[in-house]
This record gives sequence, structure tokens and C-alpha cells, in this order.
Amino acid sequence: MNKSRLEAFSDGVLAIIITIMILEIKVPENNSFESLKPLIPVILSYVLSFVYVGIYWNNHHHMFQVVKKVSGSILWSNLFLLYWLSLIPFGTSWIGSQNFAAVPMSIYGFILLMCAISYTFLQNQIIKLEGMDSILYKTVENDKKGKIFLICYILAIPQAFVSPWIT
Amino acid sequence: MNKSRLEAFSDGVLAIIITIMILEIKVPENNSFESLKPLIPVILSYVLSFVYVGIYWNNHHHMFQVVKKVSGSILWSNLFLLYWLSLIPFGTSWIGSQNFAAVPMSIYGFILLMCAISYTFLQNQIIKLEGMDSILYKTVENDKKGKIFLICYILAIPQAFVSPWIT
Amino acid sequence: MNKSRLEAFSDGVLAIIITIMILEIKVPENNSFESLKPLIPVILSYVLSFVYVGIYWNNHHHMFQVVKKVSGSILWSNLFLLYWLSLIPFGTSWIGSQNFAAVPMSIYGFILLMCAISYTFLQNQIIKLEGMDSILYKTVENDKKGKIFLICYILAIPQAFVSPWIT
Amino acid sequence: MNKSRLEAFSDGVLAIIITIMILEIKVPENNSFESLKPLIPVILSYVLSFVYVGIYWNNHHHMFQVVKKVSGSILWSNLFLLYWLSLIPFGTSWIGSQNFAAVPMSIYGFILLMCAISYTFLQNQIIKLEGMDSILYKTVENDKKGKIFLICYILAIPQAFVSPWIT
Repeated sequence: MNKSRLEAFSDGVLAIIITIMILEIKVPENNSFESLKPLIPVILSYVLSFVYVGIYWNNHHHMFQVVKKVSGSILWSNLFLLYWLSLIPFGTSWIGSQNFAAVPMSIYGFILLMCAISYTFLQNQIIKLEGMDSILYKTVENDKKGKIFLICYILAIPQAFVSPWIT
Repeated sequence: MNKSRLEAFSDGVLAIIITIMILEIKVPENNSFESLKPLIPVILSYVLSFVYVGIYWNNHHHMFQVVKKVSGSILWSNLFLLYWLSLIPFGTSWIGSQNFAAVPMSIYGFILLMCAISYTFLQNQIIKLEGMDSILYKTVENDKKGKIFLICYILAIPQAFVSPWIT
Repeated sequence: MNKSRLEAFSDGVLAIIITIMILEIKVPENNSFESLKPLIPVILSYVLSFVYVGIYWNNHHHMFQVVKKVSGSILWSNLFLLYWLSLIPFGTSWIGSQNFAAVPMSIYGFILLMCAISYTFLQNQIIKLEGMDSILYKTVENDKKGKIFLICYILAIPQAFVSPWIT
Repeated sequence: MNKSRLEAFSDGVLAIIITIMILEIKVPENNSFESLKPLIPVILSYVLSFVYVGIYWNNHHHMFQVVKKVSGSILWSNLFLLYWLSLIPFGTSWIGSQNFAAVPMSIYGFILLMCAISYTFLQNQIIKLEGMDSILYKTVENDKKGKIFLICYILAIPQAFVSPWIT
């Protein structure tokens, strides 16, 4: 099974995810500079998510360059990753419209955590198929950065959960 | 006629279908966990449809790998399949907003049935062109699973139709 | 200049045009069969436009198969065609919401006419570049059907314009 | 690293940007010709932005034809360009709905300026990687037109800023 259609489909989904977030930025009703003010958190959340999805596209691109063939389990792991990425626009527009409040932030953090987990899962599926001597395996082994990120996410979310309950 | 543009166009349409469903998940007006509660059926219907479209993309990918050339009738059968798949977001958002009520469910079931029928139709067009000794023909012959699914769909829909009338 | 990116970009735009029309089909507020009734003209207009865009994708696919190279003027003629095609969702949702009234129909007809004209224009640009002995030139020469269609469009639109004025 | 996925992803994002602007053209509530009148500035702004995005796609296409390989910094410069391009639909629909008022126009001009700057930045990244003797470098060197455009943009925006303050 060749990988070109999986790449094309993923590119399509990622391109749509990264662009439809802009549809959530509602155009101001009047034409003053002040009317842009309430949009600031919305635009900030858009920038944040744009960078996130950009990172995933970048990593996806790099990872699949060392992939030679794809299996059914890789197709499904990839769809699982795309599912969680597709929830980013929802999270983005919630945190933007609620001014980065704690509950939306924790949901947004949860979506990002699931993206990171499903990405790691996809990576493992590829390593399984490619074998221990693949380039990807060697790269991932040395990549402590990714794992630390994952742990940070997991630690950050309960904090966000706890803080609103205290307040 | 080569198949690459048909694949690219189908990938594009499927990527859009699978992603625009998320636009139907309206962002809550406030920032409490409770505000997520009414979204549960909407999110469930999204998961369900995401899996369905994922299955179709997967099968489409597998099927076209054995295809060597495409004809006009394959182009049109493919468009017919894409038409029915494009109605899935409509069905999804109806069943989600109506809490899986019987009438929306029967319409959703009808759309899925038409997807299955048009997929079978496309398969037959390909087999016709590729010949009886093609790999696809042999695979499909042994595939009793698909046919049973089709019959289940057909049996399930009248049930959904009948149940609201009784109530 | 090679043609693959022009094809990929056109496929992307056409895939989006054909799928976003579905976003205009508003989900009914309740869950009865009757609530689907006002959607009938909307769905009919969607089917009509889906077929139209399908035909254009089909023809575009066929035409570019004989193209060997692309020039700047072909890129721009193609964008001009995509512009008019991109107005089809607007026309579709107007005729659907207004039950195929005369004024929306005449605007819809005008958009389709401009699509046909810009398609012919693109065809001529390709023939100019490919030369008189290209396969496309020979095919088009024998294609009286297309020209008659164009004339029908031109004749049909004033009729649609006139009929509402009379009423 | 090969360039095909970068091209495919950019094509996807550009195709979506150029097409979703049409979603902002709200369908009139009734079926008279007069109801189209308030749409005129909206349609004009759409035409303007369609041409702009078309020019960027065209230039992007030309530029990447001379590119042989891509680096991480090119991937990110490209994403930076796509980010600013993705704000065009927002600017378009604001200037359209506010009848080309000064403040929306200055924001729109600012977005276009950032597109031009990030495009130039991407171009420089490519030249850095390809070397001084690349075809791109030679083409850009002779291209005084682009630089003049950039200066015009920069000069035009403060004017738009100043004019509403005076009024």
C-alpha cells in the first residue's frame, strides 16, 4: 500500500482545520478601531492554534518521509490523530470567545493532550511496521523533548481543572 | 485516463465532509462544564459520522489501488457516491440536535444506505472495466460481510420509520 | 511549467465548491417528516448544482489530459473559470430559498452562462498554446453540442429576465 | 526533504481561502433585483480578494518551480505566509460589509502588506538555500516591480490611518 493518498488526505484535512478557524472570527458590526478590541482574544487563540496545527503538519511531513509503506493500522491511527486535530477549531473558538477562562482552557488542553497521545500512537504503529532499525525509531529514541512535552500536558490539565473549582 | 485526479478530487471532497461537520458543533455561550452537556449527543453523532466517512475513505483507498484505468462511467459513479457522502454532515447535525430521534435517525439511515448502494455500484463499474479476473472481483466475491451489512441497513430503516408512527 | 499544481489547485477549489453548498441546507428545528418539506427546493437546487459542478470537473479532467504544458494565460483563464464556478453556491442557495423564482433563476442562469463562456475561453487558450494539430482542437471542432448549449443559455436568460417583468 | 507536500498543503489552504470568502455573501431574503444592490460592495470586495489570492497562488507556483529542496525554515516561512493570507477573508468581508470605510480598509491594507512582507521573507529563505546562482535569485534581482509594490503598500496604509482621524 503506498503512502501518497494518506499524505494527500491528511494534507487536505489539516489545510481545512487550519483555515476554517478563521470563519469563527466574526466581522465587527461597525467600522471603528474600537470594534476590533473584543476580537483580540479571538485572534490570539487563532494564532495559538494556527501554530499548533502548523507544528503537527510539520512533524507529520517529517515523519512520513521515512515511511516506506502503510498498513491498515497506520491508516486508522492517522484517522484517530486527524479526529483529535479536527476538534481544535472548536476548542479555539471556545477559549477565544470566553477570554481564556479556566474550563474552556482545560478542554482545549485536553484536546491538545489527545492530539499528542494519538500522534505518539501513530508513531509507534509506524515504528512497529518499519522495524527497530528504521530511521524513525532512531530519531524518536533520541527525542526526549517530545516525551517531556507530553508529561507537561498531563500535569497542566488537572491544574486547570482544579483552579476553577477553587475559585 | 489515469486515476490520480479522481483520487485527488475524492480525497478533497472526503476531507471537507469529515471536517465541516465540526462547524455544526456550536461553541457554548458560557464557560462552565455544564454548558458542554447539551453538546454530548452532537459530539456523539460527530464521532459516529467521522468513523463512517473514515471507513469509506479507507475502502475507497483500498479499492482504487487495484484500479489501473478509469472510464467515464467510473467518474460518474464516483460522483454519485460523493453526492450521498456529502449529505452525511446534514444527517449528522440533525440527529445530533434532535437527540437521535426516530425520524432524523431514519433519514440518516437512508443516507447511509444510499452511500452503501452507490459504493457497491461503483465497485461493479470497476469490476466491469477491469474484468472478471481482476483482484477486486476476487476480493469482492469472498466478501459476504459487505452484503450482509447492506441487508441490515435495508431492514433497519423501515423499523425506524415504523417506530415513530406507533408512538 | 508543468500542469500538476494547476490540476491540484482546481481540484481543491472544485471539491470545496461542491461540498460547501451542503452547509446551506439548514437542519430542521424539530424532528418530524413535515419539517423536511420546506427543504425540498433547497435539496433540488443542490442536486442541480452538484451535477453542474460535476460536469465541469469531468470536462476539466478530460481537457487537461491532452494538455502538455501550461502558460501564464492558461493559469489566469483557469482562475477566471474558477471564479465563476465559485459563485454557483451563492446562486444555488438563492434559487433554493426562493423556490426557483424568476429573478434568482436569471442570476443563476447568468452565473452558469459565465462559467460556460470562461470554460470556452480557457479551451481556446489551451488550443492556442498546443497548436492546431492538438488532440483538443480536433475534439472541440467536432463538438457542436457545446456550442448549441452556449446559445441555449444565452437565449434562456433574457426569457427569465422578461417573464418577471411581464408578471 | 521534497517539496511536493509543501505545494499540496499550500494549494489546499489557498483553495480554501479563495472559496470560503463566498460564504460571506449572504443570500438576499427576497427575490427582487433590488435585493442584490446592497451586495454590490460585498461582491466587489470578493472580486478584489479573489484576484489578490490568485496572484499569490500564481507567484507561489512560479517560485516553487525553481526550488529543488525545502528546509525547516522554508516550511515555517511558508506557514507564516499562509497565516497572513488566511486573514484575507476576514478583511474582505469587513470592507465589503462596511462599504470600503477607512478603518476596515487600513486593516485590509495591513493584512495585504503582511502578506507581501512574508512572501518576500519566504523568497529570501529560498534564495539562501538555493544559493546566489539560482534562477530565483536572478529573477528577483531584476524584479524592481515587486519592491515598488511593497513601498506603495507601506506608504498607502498610514494614509488610510490618517484620513479617518482627520474626518
